[in-house]
Amino acid sequence: MLKTGKIYVVGLGPGDRLHMSERARRAILDSEAVVGYKTYIHLIEDLLEGKEVIDSGMRKEVERCNLTLDKALEGKNVSIISSGDAGVYGMAGIMLEVVNEKKVQVEIEVIPGITAANAAASVLGAPMMHDFAVISLSDLLTDWELIKKRIECASIGDFVVALYNPKSKGRVHQIEEAREIMLKHKLPNTPVGIVRNAKRSGEEVVITDLENMLNHSIDMFTVVIIGNAKTYVKNGKMITPRGYHL
Amino acid sequence: MLKTGKIYVVGLGPGDRLHMSERARRAILDSEAVVGYKTYIHLIEDLLEGKEVIDSGMRKEVERCNLTLDKALEGKNVSIISSGDAGVYGMAGIMLEVVNEKKVQVEIEVIPGITAANAAASVLGAPMMHDFAVISLSDLLTDWELIKKRIECASIGDFVVALYNPKSKGRVHQIEEAREIMLKHKLPNTPVGIVRNAKRSGEEVVITDLENMLNHSIDMFTVVIIGNAKTYVKNGKMITPRGYHL
Ligand SMILES: C[S@@+](CC[C@H](N)C(=O)[O-])C[C@H]1O[C@@H](n2cnc3c(N)ncnc32)[C@H](O)[C@@H]1O
Ligand SMILES: C[S@@+](CC[C@H](N)C(=O)[O-])C[C@H]1O[C@@H](n2cnc3c(N)ncnc32)[C@H](O)[C@@H]1O
Repeated sequence: MLKTGKIYVVGLGPGDRLHMSERARRAILDSEAVVGYKTYIHLIEDLLEGKEVIDSGMRKEVERCNLTLDKALEGKNVSIISSGDAGVYGMAGIMLEVVNEKKVQVEIEVIPGITAANAAASVLGAPMMHDFAVISLSDLLTDWELIKKRIECASIGDFVVALYNPKSKGRVHQIEEAREIMLKHKLPNTPVGIVRNAKRSGEEVVITDLENMLNHSIDMFTVVIIGNAKTYVKNGKMITPRGYHL
Repeated sequence: MLKTGKIYVVGLGPGDRLHMSERARRAILDSEAVVGYKTYIHLIEDLLEGKEVIDSGMRKEVERCNLTLDKALEGKNVSIISSGDAGVYGMAGIMLEVVNEKKVQVEIEVIPGITAANAAASVLGAPMMHDFAVISLSDLLTDWELIKKRIECASIGDFVVALYNPKSKGRVHQIEEAREIMLKHKLPNTPVGIVRNAKRSGEEVVITDLENMLNHSIDMFTVVIIGNAKTYVKNGKMITPRGYHL
């Protein structure tokens, strides 16, 4: 019987190669095939020589996982890649689900990466030093009512909040509603950091507040970090103190 | 006037060198002095040849930052290190605060790393594929009432929850109370992943549930990840589905 290949689910980190782990690099080098969304394939072009590259458009997640599994069943090691961490709105879950569904035995290694919130926080200063919540505003797969409830709960709990998928061309009211909900429990002058393309080329950083955040451009390459009641801005850095006495 | 050195606040990732970023490695190599808690210094021993190494015990965070700043003011590049991500219960915030307090001008670069929750999640499968909250159970610097409120809010919002600093020798009732609070809003059979030393030597993994989680050993080298209402366990992996149709 044919020996199956190994599946690596690889988190590439925020984009800049310096922020990718050595484990991720080796997994890609060890793969005969690499599967991923075009933009991310582009980030690792130099590692792909001699490999079969299967790139696909957005919203083809299940298809990508099926192709990955096919390659492994052909006996090839294969990497399926995500930006950031593969386990945060990435490919890890769906890849495991597809393999479970097909009832096959394949070795899968999930390789973690630096997720967008941590990358963005490092650019802003230290806004996530205390308890935080990560919420995606995409209601493609999740009921908008549930997302709103989570924003409300995170605000009542005075969490620092990191918003993924904050806005796209067709999805604009979510970030407006999210802000309204947060304003019920957080002050208008609560610091807000908006980071586009954190730790990759095209990086843009804005520090503003809940009152004014919608006056800045926000899109699907952006993470928005909203502080807690103690977050402040000093010397251009956003800081959430943990409570040490200086 | 003496040119000041640069301060790197470096996140080393979970521990295993393969999961550290190249940017972190280069920062340490570029430093004349490296400051950190003993255990973490040990992880990068091979990079430290010829460097001044200032290791210190736990709970000396402010002192460590002051020493770091002194080195920079002497004109030396210096790295101050954290495990995981420096911006998640790490050294980034306090370092920025110390520099602000002293009203000096020093260049500071915060270098992100893979935080414990992401490392642990990758070991468990894909438990953090949906909105999640990160909460520290340490009440050394934070009011226990506020921590309890956050646990309650995160549970009501059906977040996946990652608990840092879950338990230490002197601090045992917090994890018990946290579980009680979660049980008010999450089912007893909600999957729970307990990962000790994620992605470094000595890794131990347990998958259990809210009902039984306290029957397993939990300590300060452990992250505890509690699922949301849709999290399930299959083939030994903990999965929180995002909602794709297979
Ligand atoms: C489908 S999610 C993927 C998240 C990814 N797996 C991670 O862990 O970072 C896509 C969203 O992540 C955020 N994102 C990913 N990389 C980013 C970066 N370098 N800078 C800013 N936001 C980023 C944006 O909010 C984007 O809409
Ligand atoms: C003071 S916090 C530091 C967190 C670190 N800055 C990070 O981002 O991972 C220490 C806590 O992090 C968690 N932790 C750190 N590294 C870990 C690892 N490799 N495995 C499991 N838990 C870890 C434990 O809960 C520990 O009590």
